[in-house]
Amino acid sequence: MARSKHWDEHPTSALRVSEGFRLEDFDRTGKPGFSGSKKQGRRLRKERGTLLADLQERLFAQGRVGDDRSLLLVLQGMDTAGKGGIVRHVLGMVDPQGVQARGFGAPTEEELEHHFLWRIEKALPKAGHIGVFDRSHYEDVLIARVHELVPQDTWERRYDEINEWEQRLTDSGTTIVKCALMVSQDEQLDRLAKRLTRPDKHWKYSTSDLDERAYWPAYMEAFQAVFDRTSTDAAPWHVIPSTRKWYARLAVTELLTSALESMDLEWPAPDYDLDEERARIANLRRQGE
Amino acid sequence: MARSKHWDEHPTSALRVSEGFRLEDFDRTGKPGFSGSKKQGRRLRKERGTLLADLQERLFAQGRVGDDRSLLLVLQGMDTAGKGGIVRHVLGMVDPQGVQARGFGAPTEEELEHHFLWRIEKALPKAGHIGVFDRSHYEDVLIARVHELVPQDTWERRYDEINEWEQRLTDSGTTIVKCALMVSQDEQLDRLAKRLTRPDKHWKYSTSDLDERAYWPAYMEAFQAVFDRTSTDAAPWHVIPSTRKWYARLAVTELLTSALESMDLEWPAPDYDLDEERARIANLRRQGE
Repeated sequence: MARSKHWDEHPTSALRVSEGFRLEDFDRTGKPGFSGSKKQGRRLRKERGTLLADLQERLFAQGRVGDDRSLLLVLQGMDTAGKGGIVRHVLGMVDPQGVQARGFGAPTEEELEHHFLWRIEKALPKAGHIGVFDRSHYEDVLIARVHELVPQDTWERRYDEINEWEQRLTDSGTTIVKCALMVSQDEQLDRLAKRLTRPDKHWKYSTSDLDERAYWPAYMEAFQAVFDRTSTDAAPWHVIPSTRKWYARLAVTELLTSALESMDLEWPAPDYDLDEERARIANLRRQGE
Repeated sequence: MARSKHWDEHPTSALRVSEGFRLEDFDRTGKPGFSGSKKQGRRLRKERGTLLADLQERLFAQGRVGDDRSLLLVLQGMDTAGKGGIVRHVLGMVDPQGVQARGFGAPTEEELEHHFLWRIEKALPKAGHIGVFDRSHYEDVLIARVHELVPQDTWERRYDEINEWEQRLTDSGTTIVKCALMVSQDEQLDRLAKRLTRPDKHWKYSTSDLDERAYWPAYMEAFQAVFDRTSTDAAPWHVIPSTRKWYARLAVTELLTSALESMDLEWPAPDYDLDEERARIANLRRQGE
């Protein structure tokens, strides 16, 4: 895996949930592994964006010739954590043709009639594509647990179901990159307040955002359980301090780039004879004269 | 509609198919309406990209508050005409969260069992989104007509079916922008030849590309019929000379921008009491001290 300047420790290890990870001790203002400044971080993200775009195109090209691999980025985080900004500023660096972005809100009636993974499965990226989930099946062990939307034995069972499903996905060629964006409760309040100051941000604010804050400790407990029980070798969690938005965006860029690099994506070899085709073209040109 | 510098005539009129349009007389190397240079054109596209991104976000925001309008960009053109480049360089300027890009290749067996509009309907953009079709239902009156994939009376019927369907779509809030990218047969040959010179482009080349050139006149006839029969007030065609890629990308940027501008997209008004919410936040802050 290529190491970049300014990274003392690469985010694939610096941010990965390891044994004994405790969310309550986690510094949400930090920039783990990165020694550079904001300016350097932004410049580096753009530099890496060129590589990310190149790797994405290789993945897409492979998808065209029968390779069924894909990449899935799962974004979780409390309101205002910056999930949307990741989609815009990280995925915005690659060809939209190869990106399937999908947000998950409250399930529809039809979705509720199915297993919780039904709507998730339907939204999976096609071969050669990068899928992005802004919220995901993890809501079914976060909000569903916090608000007791289903009985405890139902959500308890879901951790294993998720692990098995993700293992199956990974086995069938989907690389899963899971990122939880973390800001403090104070930072969230500042960001919510800011949304009230700008007419172009009012739509992002909902009165329920403040209501949900009453459940903050329960959400943190639910997140801790997610990290304890679903950070697997097949699909580990990365917890990303997101007070510095530039850091979170840089970190996700690096995580995606690393994931694609580890897929050894070559340009597909031609399934035709290059010289023969060149001769055909030369021949057509002569005819045209 | 805002007029931009360097446009003598705006592309919404300069490129629109009008009565008596003849594809065989169409200059595929031109830059209709635009008096600027390549450098100015590229700069202008990026400037307009900022506006495009702003309008796209308004559309997305409206979609979140119940407005069911959407925008659909339909791209058609022969191989190498630059459809993919439009997706990358035009749609690449807006938030991927609000873009649904979809390419249409040969229909699957399942798709063939349905009406030709079935797979198209399923790929329509959701409310608040910009959909992009790289090829579309027009293949069903282009390749299907040229290669007689269906009997004549079937494809003959499709023009009216398309018009009715597009009218219905427009009536239900989807603005349709149809663009046909046109390069000459010589230019196509140059572009195909170029794909053979670069390993990162080999995957874009198929031996059938040259085979299809034998049908060029039949395709041009089929395109002429498309323009004659499906350029409606509800969803007019724009024919875009695409020898200069920068021009085609700028033109599509302008067409999309104009379409969004004509939708009068305001930021959604808050559905809550701003002062009340500010007071709640101030209160929470006091509690936090």
